Amino acid sequence: MKAAIIAVGSELLGPQRLDTNSLRLTALLDRYGFDLAVKSVIGDDEAALAAELVQRASESELVLVTGGLGPTADDVTRLAVARAFDLGLSVDETIVEHMRRLFASFGREMPEVNRRQAEVLDGARVLANSRGTAPGQRIDLSAEAAPGGATVFLFPGVPRELEAMIERYLEPWLKEATAGVDQGLEMRVIKLACVPESEVEERIAPAYQRFGRERISVLASPGEVKVYFSARGSEAERRTELDEMRRALLELAGAVTFTDREEETLESVVGRLLTEAGRTLTTAESCTGGLVAERLTRVAGSSDYFLGGVVSYTNELKTRLLGVPEEMIAAHGAVSEPVGVAMAEGVRKRYGSDYGLGITGIAGPGGGSEQKPVGTVHVAMAGPDRGAHRKVIFPGGRGRVRQQSSQLALELVRRDLLKSST
Amino acid sequence: MKAAIIAVGSELLGPQRLDTNSLRLTALLDRYGFDLAVKSVIGDDEAALAAELVQRASESELVLVTGGLGPTADDVTRLAVARAFDLGLSVDETIVEHMRRLFASFGREMPEVNRRQAEVLDGARVLANSRGTAPGQRIDLSAEAAPGGATVFLFPGVPRELEAMIERYLEPWLKEATAGVDQGLEMRVIKLACVPESEVEERIAPAYQRFGRERISVLASPGEVKVYFSARGSEAERRTELDEMRRALLELAGAVTFTDREEETLESVVGRLLTEAGRTLTTAESCTGGLVAERLTRVAGSSDYFLGGVVSYTNELKTRLLGVPEEMIAAHGAVSEPVGVAMAEGVRKRYGSDYGLGITGIAGPGGGSEQKPVGTVHVAMAGPDRGAHRKVIFPGGRGRVRQQSSQLALELVRRDLLKSST
Repeated sequence: MKAAIIAVGSELLGPQRLDTNSLRLTALLDRYGFDLAVKSVIGDDEAALAAELVQRASESELVLVTGGLGPTADDVTRLAVARAFDLGLSVDETIVEHMRRLFASFGREMPEVNRRQAEVLDGARVLANSRGTAPGQRIDLSAEAAPGGATVFLFPGVPRELEAMIERYLEPWLKEATAGVDQGLEMRVIKLACVPESEVEERIAPAYQRFGRERISVLASPGEVKVYFSARGSEAERRTELDEMRRALLELAGAVTFTDREEETLESVVGRLLTEAGRTLTTAESCTGGLVAERLTRVAGSSDYFLGGVVSYTNELKTRLLGVPEEMIAAHGAVSEPVGVAMAEGVRKRYGSDYGLGITGIAGPGGGSEQKPVGTVHVAMAGPDRGAHRKVIFPGGRGRVRQQSSQLALELVRRDLLKSST
Repeated sequence: MKAAIIAVGSELLGPQRLDTNSLRLTALLDRYGFDLAVKSVIGDDEAALAAELVQRASESELVLVTGGLGPTADDVTRLAVARAFDLGLSVDETIVEHMRRLFASFGREMPEVNRRQAEVLDGARVLANSRGTAPGQRIDLSAEAAPGGATVFLFPGVPRELEAMIERYLEPWLKEATAGVDQGLEMRVIKLACVPESEVEERIAPAYQRFGRERISVLASPGEVKVYFSARGSEAERRTELDEMRRALLELAGAVTFTDREEETLESVVGRLLTEAGRTLTTAESCTGGLVAERLTRVAGSSDYFLGGVVSYTNELKTRLLGVPEEMIAAHGAVSEPVGVAMAEGVRKRYGSDYGLGITGIAGPGGGSEQKPVGTVHVAMAGPDRGAHRKVIFPGGRGRVRQQSSQLALELVRRDLLKSST
């Protein structure tokens, strides 16, 4: 069955922003074997959106619209659907009441303009938004309104609102529409830390040959490489095939693979391993400025294993908070192996954790020298059984250097935990 | 004048990849005052692309197509244009010769399949590709083929090939089409912190009336609202208009505006104000887990005013690192006004900075109670002249609560620095 996605919003037509919501929708359509024929982005223009809707509904069985459901005059999606398919719009007072209560729970009064969000199209099913004020709508068009009688979903453009709503409303619909005929594409992933993309490509080359190049794709970001692999067919066929591909890729990729689950991140894997081992962690950061602590604490429940950290941006704080000797800093410089190691050991000992991380480096753009160019970073790990240290000169600007450093720090803990558990 | 962009390629309809070429094209269209009405992505499907081309050429004066010019059967752009506008296609032997020489220069023979890349549409101008084999084409449609006689450009999808070709062929064409009349669109922005989108909408409503709603757009993210405003016309006209809009919007928006420069962030503004005032800052974070420190140190040169910070995730570290009395935590709980204030004062005093920030709260998803629901955050600032404290119950999940908390913390410092400077 054919599907189309329309993203609404003039800001998505500017030179700064892309519609990323469609990626999430695409993954779901693929899984249920829907064929995405077209994606488009339309500005906040009622007539243009109405024309686009008419066109897409005439070609596709399913039209997914994101954005334009806010309370302002810019938000034209409801009006455009009404115009496109000649449907009436009327305010649903239960929605208004719900919004009033939502605002009240934050101690605020609902602005009158928000009533527009309660306007429902004739015959539409209202889709509750558990994470925001704008409800979604589902319209099953009559064969008169659109040849073939397409179904149109209206979703908010805010990613976290959309996410909850597609799980609650779109996925069950797709499941039912495909009526048990499961012929979808399924995709899996393995994620690798601290290894260059080109090295990954070389390692997995035999898998390209064995399974076909078009079924494996590699996606790199600073300090991380994802290898996606896919199979088509019935659920049983897919599973057999994907398990085989997974085994082959894991063997080729080796120990740098930190997970084979889409939802896991390096910080969540480190958290899981720390929890399993009953170990705790503290951090002492200089050039990463708190990024490692921030990543660790993105994970819900991280207080079970992460005790806290120190961002010692000045030499004085390195000495006072971590006990790094002044003379050591004077002799070797703040960006040096001894200082990195002393930071890791200092934070571990002083704050009573099993693991301590120390990171000191030159993130740039200033501060580099011939001996210590921008990108020079010392990452040290002090563990219960042993320590580790790496000196790296990372490429890229400030943000990339920091991201790669945080990745290496987490990876050192992960490898040590794996060693200890074997 | 209206423009449309069509990206061609089934890989751009998958769950991993986005069409990023359009951003480059958009920037150029904006500069010459073209109005991008729609962007779309179509798979390698000749009929679907032909239909899309007919539709876009009927609405727009300019249609930019990227991708689908390769040598394989998947590459359908040339055929689709021929079908859409009923144009013939014939092989241009000069192009074939050029490609043969190109292949020869790499010591290879040209595969016969590459002859397809030399197929030129009737009446098209060939656009040489200095960085690859696929030439582009420009077709000026007759009024018969498309009402208004649109111009269609075909460009390769490889970014570095495209880049060279738009500079060499598209930009001169845009310049000529606008006939030296500099009628570009220029956009500016003001950014506001810690104010809900709906409140911003209400405040700036008079500007909508005065300047036209379509010229002002509001973009919200957690803890931040951006108001974009634009003007068209000659450079002098635009400048006058934008200055007037800027003045009006700043007056309506009030003191929550932290910048009117696209490149500035709240953390960079706080950094600039601290530098100007010769003040320093330290942070004591609990629920934000280092996010405030991490944001501050994203800014190059932040070591001039940011001394460091503490992530005190446990109660013990709040006492040991910040001097928060154990009895205070026992009496009020770690998430309370006294503890937040004591964290801010503690980090300021102990680490010798002018400003200290303390943040304690429940980011969720767990840890909430009836009295202190998830989202409850105490943000405290201890400054050289005075302190401040806010208790807020932020909506949203863990990430949003943390982002909004960090935003409020930075905003408290910004406001205090402004107060001190007046």
